[in-house]
Amino acid sequence: MTLIEKLIANLSRLPGVGRKSASRIVYYLLKADNAYIENLSKDLLNLKQLVSNCTKCGNYTEIQPCDICSDRLRERHVLCVVEEPKDVLSIESINEYNGLYHVLMGAISPINGIGPRDLRISSFLSRIGEENIKEVILATNPTIEGDTTALYIIDLLKNKEVDVSITRLALGLPVGGDLEYTDKLTLARAFMGRNTV
Amino acid sequence: MTLIEKLIANLSRLPGVGRKSASRIVYYLLKADNAYIENLSKDLLNLKQLVSNCTKCGNYTEIQPCDICSDRLRERHVLCVVEEPKDVLSIESINEYNGLYHVLMGAISPINGIGPRDLRISSFLSRIGEENIKEVILATNPTIEGDTTALYIIDLLKNKEVDVSITRLALGLPVGGDLEYTDKLTLARAFMGRNTV
Repeated sequence: MTLIEKLIANLSRLPGVGRKSASRIVYYLLKADNAYIENLSKDLLNLKQLVSNCTKCGNYTEIQPCDICSDRLRERHVLCVVEEPKDVLSIESINEYNGLYHVLMGAISPINGIGPRDLRISSFLSRIGEENIKEVILATNPTIEGDTTALYIIDLLKNKEVDVSITRLALGLPVGGDLEYTDKLTLARAFMGRNTV
Repeated sequence: MTLIEKLIANLSRLPGVGRKSASRIVYYLLKADNAYIENLSKDLLNLKQLVSNCTKCGNYTEIQPCDICSDRLRERHVLCVVEEPKDVLSIESINEYNGLYHVLMGAISPINGIGPRDLRISSFLSRIGEENIKEVILATNPTIEGDTTALYIIDLLKNKEVDVSITRLALGLPVGGDLEYTDKLTLARAFMGRNTV
């Protein structure tokens, strides 16, 4: 197996990269400047050494605690609960939310053997009291696993009788979407969540 | 700029990889095993050091001459002329052609300042005589640049009065294609090149 073939095979393992895109990438790299490739190679190697999970929120970070957790200008009494670090990136990109995060590192999924104990739920509960959280936004995915996880957390908070308001993200039509092409469940949720105008 | 942001920015430069796919790749790598990342990093670094152009055909190779040029089982009197090393990969993948290759390293393109002297044309002409080539298949792209290059080579060979048969790849409908969605030029070429059945 030549180096080109090996690199194509390894790049094909990346999400969203098939064999064809992998070979396009390799042929691009063969013409790319050395500094770019050296940077890429070095950064890949450093990635897992320099990046770890924030001890507080669980998001990926190079410093402890992470930028968001240590930012005094953010609303420190609102906590947005997400499944994965990449969800933080998505929410940050909309510039709509200015509170803190808590990354669960997954969602409850009996089929994959993931229970509540495998998630960062106990550290979440500690934070509620310690950080005097007033609102919890459950931003888990609108999937069976995400919904189960959200319901589990709602139950926990209600049983503990802590004084926080709990919200979930709205479900409905995607902006720019088309009624005709919207799946039935989403359309049903859009009806249930309709707003007076 | 954090390492994650830097890596996303650098990966976005790769062909077919946008910001969104780049961040998916980075989050995938953060969970990937170390051996895989170390391999990828090392292979990237080695790529340009170990891979060079075959001194004979111009294709990318780790040995001189390349596997194809040194393969005694291939038809050594047929020469397929292509623009780029990646075209060799495409043609090899169909398992239809068993001759040799000659990579021009581009195509004539006055708009980009690329003339015949910038291409590997003189080494091609030497090979015709030295290697006693009987057939030349011009497999340049069906674009203005590719056609210009093919016509230029046809002219050269005819002026030199060398005794080779010259062929070009057939133009026509793509297999599985649809007349309705085929562009006019391709449809016209499919008519011109129609075969008796």
